[in-house]
Amino acid sequence: METGLPVSVPSTALFTDQYELTMLQAALHAGTAERRSVFEVFTRRLPEGRRYGVVAGTGRVLDAVENFRFDDQMLRFLGETHVVDEPTLEWLAGYRFRGDILGYPEGEAYFPGSPLLRVEGTFAECVLLETVILSILNHDSAVAAAASRMAVAAGGRPLIEMGARRTHELGAVAASRSAYVGGFDTTSDLAAGFRYGIPTVGTSAHAFTLLHDTERDAFRAQVDSLGSGTTLLVDTYDVAEAVRTAVDVAGPELGAVRIDSGDLLLVAHRVRQQLDELGATKTRIVVTSDLDEYAIASLAAAPVDAYGVGTQLVTGSGHPTASMVYKLVARADSDDPAAPLRPVAKRSLGGKTSLGGAKWAARPLDADGVAEAEIVGSGPVPDELAGHQLQVRLVENGTVVGREPLEAARARHRASLARLPMSAMQLSRGEPVLPVEHR
Amino acid sequence: METGLPVSVPSTALFTDQYELTMLQAALHAGTAERRSVFEVFTRRLPEGRRYGVVAGTGRVLDAVENFRFDDQMLRFLGETHVVDEPTLEWLAGYRFRGDILGYPEGEAYFPGSPLLRVEGTFAECVLLETVILSILNHDSAVAAAASRMAVAAGGRPLIEMGARRTHELGAVAASRSAYVGGFDTTSDLAAGFRYGIPTVGTSAHAFTLLHDTERDAFRAQVDSLGSGTTLLVDTYDVAEAVRTAVDVAGPELGAVRIDSGDLLLVAHRVRQQLDELGATKTRIVVTSDLDEYAIASLAAAPVDAYGVGTQLVTGSGHPTASMVYKLVARADSDDPAAPLRPVAKRSLGGKTSLGGAKWAARPLDADGVAEAEIVGSGPVPDELAGHQLQVRLVENGTVVGREPLEAARARHRASLARLPMSAMQLSRGEPVLPVEHR
Repeated sequence: METGLPVSVPSTALFTDQYELTMLQAALHAGTAERRSVFEVFTRRLPEGRRYGVVAGTGRVLDAVENFRFDDQMLRFLGETHVVDEPTLEWLAGYRFRGDILGYPEGEAYFPGSPLLRVEGTFAECVLLETVILSILNHDSAVAAAASRMAVAAGGRPLIEMGARRTHELGAVAASRSAYVGGFDTTSDLAAGFRYGIPTVGTSAHAFTLLHDTERDAFRAQVDSLGSGTTLLVDTYDVAEAVRTAVDVAGPELGAVRIDSGDLLLVAHRVRQQLDELGATKTRIVVTSDLDEYAIASLAAAPVDAYGVGTQLVTGSGHPTASMVYKLVARADSDDPAAPLRPVAKRSLGGKTSLGGAKWAARPLDADGVAEAEIVGSGPVPDELAGHQLQVRLVENGTVVGREPLEAARARHRASLARLPMSAMQLSRGEPVLPVEHR
Repeated sequence: METGLPVSVPSTALFTDQYELTMLQAALHAGTAERRSVFEVFTRRLPEGRRYGVVAGTGRVLDAVENFRFDDQMLRFLGETHVVDEPTLEWLAGYRFRGDILGYPEGEAYFPGSPLLRVEGTFAECVLLETVILSILNHDSAVAAAASRMAVAAGGRPLIEMGARRTHELGAVAASRSAYVGGFDTTSDLAAGFRYGIPTVGTSAHAFTLLHDTERDAFRAQVDSLGSGTTLLVDTYDVAEAVRTAVDVAGPELGAVRIDSGDLLLVAHRVRQQLDELGATKTRIVVTSDLDEYAIASLAAAPVDAYGVGTQLVTGSGHPTASMVYKLVARADSDDPAAPLRPVAKRSLGGKTSLGGAKWAARPLDADGVAEAEIVGSGPVPDELAGHQLQVRLVENGTVVGREPLEAARARHRASLARLPMSAMQLSRGEPVLPVEHR
């Protein structure tokens, strides 16, 4: 299901830093705007201690590029506020991206220096896409990386994304999407279900218990309406009493109980024992209080059947943004479309130097099917690496060719993770699990 | 200027956790949905070491409440995915919030326990607003708090918000808005200018220099098109050479130079000296590399004229979300609209207990006009505190009455900060500067 509302916007063209338009104006004026150019997205580092990154947001980038058009109202705004001059406004009115984009497909793991996205076209058409591409990839990849670690920690137990209330209302929808790519199973966010078809879940909050005169009344109201398969929240007053009441009201076929406070490890064990004694041996236990990947891992031996994760998921578990950049790496010396591209790179002091030239990437596997290295090069791809290339075609001559169902990205992430060295699965701090070798 | 696009959405009704709808269904079924209820938004704690919080997003909350309507497409989605039953869908089709909202006005400082928003109406109409209200306030207030600290650190020097590329593309627009409330002056985000009328700025990136055959060509192209008042980026190759070229090309009336890498303290001093020696004594220096409030403070004695802040601003400088919650604090025992409200509160172990009853708040001042305490109570407001109340009417009988220009929120924040004890201005970790006293 993809209904397009309410999280689409009529145009993405103003999700743009002003300097992109002023550079455009100056380049148009100087006659350099049409020089063929290559921009690349990459990161210089992973968040400290992380073993791998996860590409997410690619599908949203494709939508954003397609919807990057300046309508009359936007052009009037840019004119009235003197952001750009009249010739530039005319150029913008006809803007469509007509170049090529290739990149790592969504869900793929990445490392520092991986050439994640390559945008090729004229300088003018490529420079405008910087901010919106980075916004999407930096946000979505940060959430997906956290989700992936949490999924590893959960070891197959279901994960519920429930962080909408902790982040921007539309950021939340993108976060649900990224969490799903990274390995979460469901979301509480109805807009994410509506927009992306992610399965939604949710039953009740403490307010529902407090609304009623007794906890028993509340449980009965919920079971009467939603059936005994529902999840009852048992920590509004006394947990042991609530569990007793819950099974009494719903019967041993009660679907689940949810615990949202306290020492989850201790409480989960007690509640499991109590449920079993009451004959509710199939009633599941869902825990949902301030979890992150470490808390999830610490509950591995506890009788927990599902984890609900909010804050730490949508804020990237301490790293709410990936540090991807969008850099000009090659350009022609003239506006002749046939002019050769030559590598360019910033080269001042201070650690922000980057590598010039359009780059390919390959991840060869050893005999056991485990990735050995991330090999990045410019120029022709060596024959023995041709079958291991990471980048795929996403946009050709302005037409999106790389769209895929969200399930494909989710499956790719699982497969990508399965091919990384085992140390990728460690939550402890360490170096990226694959070295990036430059050819 | 407020054009409404591209950051409005046709409806905010699905920015909702599913459990709000299932609670609604169960309450409708049980006959408790129409019980008069009061929900409050508050936080149990500030981020560790922070002295105060900043309310932001109130204006967006009012828009969200007004646009909270279920259209046919949404209702079909909720029906087809069996989120709720047919009677609930019918109830949702007619949904409009018809209750009252009062709260701290936007820009006001707050503390743990401050009753930031009070939502009154039937349980059914109030419970639905939980997620969207928290999403907005938690995100926007987190950014505003960081912005406020940065503005304090900048001590009157202009601050440019340029974090769009580091966060969700629509979160970025809200972040610009919050930054402006918190004390920032301009933004690079064109959508924020378009939507909220925040002044936008921006000139060029390293890509522009790299596009041209020489740095001199690039500077000349920019100055030819944008005038000598523009800002030239001087750290693509060698800073000293770039500064010389910049003044040579633009003349001593060059508007500004921007430094985006290196040891900013050292480089700023050198560049200032060089500019002065070249006669460009009025050329300003803008710095923009990974700044936070501490880095800004460390540049207080450096010859810097403006700060551009990205990542740390939009990610709340280490605290990307405020930890506000939305809790039922009082409700009637029956659906008689005249039935008295009685306080309710969760009371299980584990630190999540909250205080029942609808609350007022007042912040009395001492003889010097400095706030003495945050006094929070339920029941009648004591006469001596009546003039110091913090909450204002925002929505009455479903009609928004508290809308105001963004400038008003920005001015209020400045005024609010000026009335806090001086220790609020310290960046170092400490306790909240006002104690919250319960009456």
